[in-house]
Amino acid sequence: MRSRVEAIRDMMRSRGWDAVVLTGTDPHVSEYSAPRWHQIEWVSGYTGEGELVITEDHAGLWTDTRYFIQAERQLQGTGIELHKTRVQDQVLIPEWLKTRFAGYDEVVIAVDGLGISATEVIEIRDTVGKDRTAIANVPDMLSFFWTDRPGYPQSPIITLGADTVGWSRKQKIVWIRKWLKDNGCDAILLTALDEIAWMLNVRGRDVAYNPVVMSYLLVASDTIQWFVRKGPIPENDNETEDSFYELTASGVNIQDYSDIGMALAGMIDDDYIKKIFIDPSSLNYDLYGILKENSLQDNVVTGKSPVALRKSVKNEVEIAGLREAHLEDGLAMERFLYWLETMIEAGEPLNEYECSVKLHEFRSRIEGFRGESFETISAYGPNAALPHYVTPENGSAELYANGLYLCDSGGQYLFGTTDITRTVPLGPCSQLEKEDYTLVLKGHIALSRIVFPKGTAGCQIDVMARAPLWNSKRNFGHGTGHGVGFYLNVHEGPQEIRQNFNRQAILPGMVTTDEPGIYREGRHGIRHENVLLCVDAGENDFGRWLRFEPLTLCHFDTSILVKELLDEEDIKWLNDYNERVFRTLSPRLPSEIATWLRQKTLPIIR
Amino acid sequence: MRSRVEAIRDMMRSRGWDAVVLTGTDPHVSEYSAPRWHQIEWVSGYTGEGELVITEDHAGLWTDTRYFIQAERQLQGTGIELHKTRVQDQVLIPEWLKTRFAGYDEVVIAVDGLGISATEVIEIRDTVGKDRTAIANVPDMLSFFWTDRPGYPQSPIITLGADTVGWSRKQKIVWIRKWLKDNGCDAILLTALDEIAWMLNVRGRDVAYNPVVMSYLLVASDTIQWFVRKGPIPENDNETEDSFYELTASGVNIQDYSDIGMALAGMIDDDYIKKIFIDPSSLNYDLYGILKENSLQDNVVTGKSPVALRKSVKNEVEIAGLREAHLEDGLAMERFLYWLETMIEAGEPLNEYECSVKLHEFRSRIEGFRGESFETISAYGPNAALPHYVTPENGSAELYANGLYLCDSGGQYLFGTTDITRTVPLGPCSQLEKEDYTLVLKGHIALSRIVFPKGTAGCQIDVMARAPLWNSKRNFGHGTGHGVGFYLNVHEGPQEIRQNFNRQAILPGMVTTDEPGIYREGRHGIRHENVLLCVDAGENDFGRWLRFEPLTLCHFDTSILVKELLDEEDIKWLNDYNERVFRTLSPRLPSEIATWLRQKTLPIIR
Repeated sequence: MRSRVEAIRDMMRSRGWDAVVLTGTDPHVSEYSAPRWHQIEWVSGYTGEGELVITEDHAGLWTDTRYFIQAERQLQGTGIELHKTRVQDQVLIPEWLKTRFAGYDEVVIAVDGLGISATEVIEIRDTVGKDRTAIANVPDMLSFFWTDRPGYPQSPIITLGADTVGWSRKQKIVWIRKWLKDNGCDAILLTALDEIAWMLNVRGRDVAYNPVVMSYLLVASDTIQWFVRKGPIPENDNETEDSFYELTASGVNIQDYSDIGMALAGMIDDDYIKKIFIDPSSLNYDLYGILKENSLQDNVVTGKSPVALRKSVKNEVEIAGLREAHLEDGLAMERFLYWLETMIEAGEPLNEYECSVKLHEFRSRIEGFRGESFETISAYGPNAALPHYVTPENGSAELYANGLYLCDSGGQYLFGTTDITRTVPLGPCSQLEKEDYTLVLKGHIALSRIVFPKGTAGCQIDVMARAPLWNSKRNFGHGTGHGVGFYLNVHEGPQEIRQNFNRQAILPGMVTTDEPGIYREGRHGIRHENVLLCVDAGENDFGRWLRFEPLTLCHFDTSILVKELLDEEDIKWLNDYNERVFRTLSPRLPSEIATWLRQKTLPIIR
Repeated sequence: MRSRVEAIRDMMRSRGWDAVVLTGTDPHVSEYSAPRWHQIEWVSGYTGEGELVITEDHAGLWTDTRYFIQAERQLQGTGIELHKTRVQDQVLIPEWLKTRFAGYDEVVIAVDGLGISATEVIEIRDTVGKDRTAIANVPDMLSFFWTDRPGYPQSPIITLGADTVGWSRKQKIVWIRKWLKDNGCDAILLTALDEIAWMLNVRGRDVAYNPVVMSYLLVASDTIQWFVRKGPIPENDNETEDSFYELTASGVNIQDYSDIGMALAGMIDDDYIKKIFIDPSSLNYDLYGILKENSLQDNVVTGKSPVALRKSVKNEVEIAGLREAHLEDGLAMERFLYWLETMIEAGEPLNEYECSVKLHEFRSRIEGFRGESFETISAYGPNAALPHYVTPENGSAELYANGLYLCDSGGQYLFGTTDITRTVPLGPCSQLEKEDYTLVLKGHIALSRIVFPKGTAGCQIDVMARAPLWNSKRNFGHGTGHGVGFYLNVHEGPQEIRQNFNRQAILPGMVTTDEPGIYREGRHGIRHENVLLCVDAGENDFGRWLRFEPLTLCHFDTSILVKELLDEEDIKWLNDYNERVFRTLSPRLPSEIATWLRQKTLPIIR
């Protein structure tokens, strides 16, 4: 059987293409996409994040530190070469293509314009050379060979009321129209799926773990048009029917998903829209091309979507929901950790996958649970050294009564999204495990308890979580914290806590994770993660102050701490936190678990 | 007598200008300038940093937090209004002009193109509106009224040998020519005065405290042209004559300062230079205009000067010199602090200015001392709350045996530049003074002892110095650290340690200050400053590590520390540092001072 790479090469030859660039994103440049856009996996078998470049004589996969080990394993025997990114001597795709085609008078690079961002294609074209590079845009390129390719997702759509999300759809529309007026625009096209879900107060299940609806939303001065779904609602889908009824009643004009390009061009052509705001970071190359072909660039204003920032600052109702979600999620976590310890102590055979199933079971019992917010990372021993370990359903590692077990998981609830990592000792641990465990927790605490002036950005405080590790020359290769949606994507911007020079200040109401870690290949991996709410901390002569309040409620295990590495303030924070966890959760837990939790949360003394 | 603002307004009316923008910088966009460019002071009487905008009905001075109190005092009665910058609701000059002239079809803004950067003028023009804004460039504009305006400085020029600076002039020229070749250029125009001094291994005294020579330097493939001075060398200036002789012998073609524009245009016109590299950050608007008028933009490549980065990484010879400079400087500081304590204990009358004179006296005795590296800030009590306090020669404050005295000073030596701040108690202090003193020192120590991975930028570690203050809602409004030259400007880039999103990594060999502070208006001011050398800290599985080594050698007073605010690591660092100061300096001090220093540096126990 010819490989899929060879099939693509046949197409390249017949069409005169020099290279094909494939990504795993969907027409909305989503971080996670529905199976239809798992193009990289279909071509290569590799299941992590990454991008593929195919030329006549080379097939390469570009991915970052988090996926090196996985990529090396999964690409074995495919002939596809791994290109490492986020390393010191990295050569990114545009640069690589430039070098590969040095000396060519003309280069034709083919992309699936629906599955790649306009920004990326433009960067490739400009780097390889604007004058000599032609981009061949072939929407759904792989469908020629991928005969059983999944269709566009069409999951049931629900709506959320202001009692759940605080701001009604109407309020949001009024707000965005005012923003448009203030910014000299008469329309905005939202292409990012989580922004659309937020704007319309709708949720779906179109992308695994991300409760979004594949669609485009156009808000103009006197019309709201939602381009969603291809074709009619299935008969048994009452949720969607009800939702569409409600949306239509509130003035949302529902259109076919495929019509976005023509509709947009038409409205601008008719002078119905004079200035439309679009955030290019979630615009695919195909739609960009339609705007360009119709010479609409002068009518387009680009910038950061105001929805991203507005959405990231949670209102009082959302915060109340998030507190509830973290309380329920914490109860499930404590039940799970109790069960885990009991199983290990009893010497019952247990593997990583069974753990994630059990945790799912505890979460499933919560009213309003809608599924995990991402695939649970259940990792024992050396497996935890892969920050993005995928726990296999079959043949996952057995757990034993020694070393460390890491569990990174989260839930989607109708009233909020959670994300928590706990690393727990299952028995005796090495001195290195204990030190690493302690220093990562010290970093977690230092970030969690910082007080900072209004206007501070994440990259300006990221080092708080790293310095305790740095001081003994340890580090971790991922960001320290990401924004978390409200019953939406578990990763959202615009704020983040990492070394990147992202200028977005952390504002009161923003919800961000605090998750330092350490990863030692072949040995162990540790991560301690809470979700933090930014709250006001008062004003004085020096200005206005902010701080964090952990929303996550689940104890940190203190049994293997190297106490000498903690100072009094660390210990005070830890004792206070564990005490708060105990007081909040224990009345809602069965007595045997409450008793166990009392022991787990007893204050430590240095 | 008509005010100078009114005189400028007369000129505006007669020439049809809508606004005049004045700055205090020289034709090289220097941070500090010779008296000829103290335009703001001449017009307004205000002596700090700032910029002036004059319109028909408004005169405004823009300056930042550091100068608010000083500006308010000095502008009293002038009719010039203070516009605050680095505050949350700041309106910067371009924005202010845009608002002021909203609705105007045409706006004429006059500048002295020699005394303002091209970047700033372009920003003003583009913000006010490219299409409607005309810039009137009037070199030496104020000379029409400023009849006794100082001339261009022409101080004696000396040269430094490779035994002092490590890299000979020849090596530097070879290096820059290779850099030019690698970057597709055949020439570079250096306009920043400290870069020129570094490149040619020359020093002058053209700007107070900054040992630079007013000049432009052009390095092409086979010529080096130094545009320096107007007219011949005075008869008694043997230093300059010798230097010019040496420079000419080593291939440097010496030209008249004023000829730069024409020479440059000519060389490009003759195709002698095809691509010339220029760093726009130190290019004045007048020279920019000459390049533009001659349509030379296509021949100009702009970017960050490679000299700035190369200069900031000190070589082994420079580092040895800097160690020597800090040792000598530390001895002078200890002599001064001993003298100060003795005077206060004896109840002798003493004012701030006498202190700075005495410190100067101690430094003057050092062989190779060339003057202060900036004007000594000698400030007692509430005066220290002004971070940039200028100690008046007449009527400076008397010192008493209580509260805090702050001294921020530095020396220029033939073998290095120093910059040190010590804040010392003169007797009983309030609890707030003690806490502030301790927390600022805690921040200083936290930054000083951090270990960090290669590639880390200053803004990513700045918070180390702030977090101890932030955690009790205290802060300071200036940067934490700046680069320091080698017998050059006490402020140099490209690295810095502050909240600004400056991506420049801190590299081994870079020399940067660590100077957190706290300022309470009407009460007290505290700053603790050492100069830190970045050094290698080894490599492990996590990559390459760096750390800081304090070059400054002068004890920190421990008598008023609130020890409970320090943790064990802080105390260990402080005891080690003070012990190192004692061991290094005491053999070189008179026995009574050595005995005193022993007491001052005894380890503290919590």
